[in-house]
Amino acid sequence: MEAAILLFDRLTALDAVGPYEVLRQIPGAQVRFVAKELGPKRTDAGSLALMADYALKDISSPDIIVIPGGPGQADLMEDRVILDWIRQIHTTTHWTTSVCTGALILAAAGLLQGLRATTHWLALHVLLLRQLGAEAVSERVVVQGKIITAAGVSAGIDMALTLTALEYGEEVAQAIQLSLEYDPQPPFNAGSPGKAPATIVERVRSRSRFKVPA
Amino acid sequence: MEAAILLFDRLTALDAVGPYEVLRQIPGAQVRFVAKELGPKRTDAGSLALMADYALKDISSPDIIVIPGGPGQADLMEDRVILDWIRQIHTTTHWTTSVCTGALILAAAGLLQGLRATTHWLALHVLLLRQLGAEAVSERVVVQGKIITAAGVSAGIDMALTLTALEYGEEVAQAIQLSLEYDPQPPFNAGSPGKAPATIVERVRSRSRFKVPA
Repeated sequence: MEAAILLFDRLTALDAVGPYEVLRQIPGAQVRFVAKELGPKRTDAGSLALMADYALKDISSPDIIVIPGGPGQADLMEDRVILDWIRQIHTTTHWTTSVCTGALILAAAGLLQGLRATTHWLALHVLLLRQLGAEAVSERVVVQGKIITAAGVSAGIDMALTLTALEYGEEVAQAIQLSLEYDPQPPFNAGSPGKAPATIVERVRSRSRFKVPA
Repeated sequence: MEAAILLFDRLTALDAVGPYEVLRQIPGAQVRFVAKELGPKRTDAGSLALMADYALKDISSPDIIVIPGGPGQADLMEDRVILDWIRQIHTTTHWTTSVCTGALILAAAGLLQGLRATTHWLALHVLLLRQLGAEAVSERVVVQGKIITAAGVSAGIDMALTLTALEYGEEVAQAIQLSLEYDPQPPFNAGSPGKAPATIVERVRSRSRFKVPA
């Protein structure tokens, strides 16, 4: 099994590293980090760089592709080379996936046309407003044929475990979950806008780069 | 606020990136990745490198230190330079923390003497057997004064949110949790040895680098 995870400047690290940590444990897995150009890619806060060991031309037919999100997603949505590459890769993948605002990149590539899809809760309206053809839904992980989209940041872990169970069986997924000791115990029940206090939702929304039109 | 996250070869990426993604969002936070030598550090599977921008000598008094785990932890437990640095840093931190088998490194530095502490479930017996003086407990996040230890891999997210709430208040922690959309929905209830099917526990245990003595 070969998986490729796309890196780019100003990505959100956990969007990429959550799925990586799951997929790398699939028996026989080769996970490769790919970017338009080789080298370190700085994440959104700037204080961490993840290394891309492969350029786009080096990766032609992975079984799984993961598109993470983060502020840099806006640039990728306008990048013809990246979008062409994603469309080409998608023709032969077993699974084409996104985490967080990576769904907007898949949408810009035209791959979410007519499909239910999810993204970070702050960006759901963008998936709709841009008329990219997706039906934006507020769910954690959305499976549509071979396309899987996940909600914000941490949802990539749930997405990758779901994919693993679908493709390699529940026992493989459970063993990986146990090995990551993924028995989450968040100290608060504040992880989604429907659960967090309204004041917290407004605080986070006010800092969002995705403005809700009046 | 200044936080430092230790990197080393053969660390587990999510151990470091989970806390990073939380801590970087604390208002005014500066998160720095530090290693014995500057440059890329390869994670356990080898297919991802995280960049260390700072050497040990560059980091002298962070408010928070995070020690992740991973197979490379065994080398660090024998590394006098690393252990001396951790002990020195610890004298002025507000919080000294570990994720996964990072607790074994803290223990080797002598910092867990007489304290309740946790680590990856596969390594709990090591924390005891090596007579490093800790009382190993099977809990997700253990707070002992200014030392916080977390269970395996994904527990670093819960640890960092707990720390954030203690130091910066519950509202700051909740806003970060919401921004990470950390509303976990694992597809299985298999994230700890007490919850996973016994066959899965045995499968994962049989591959562990930590052998349980007969």
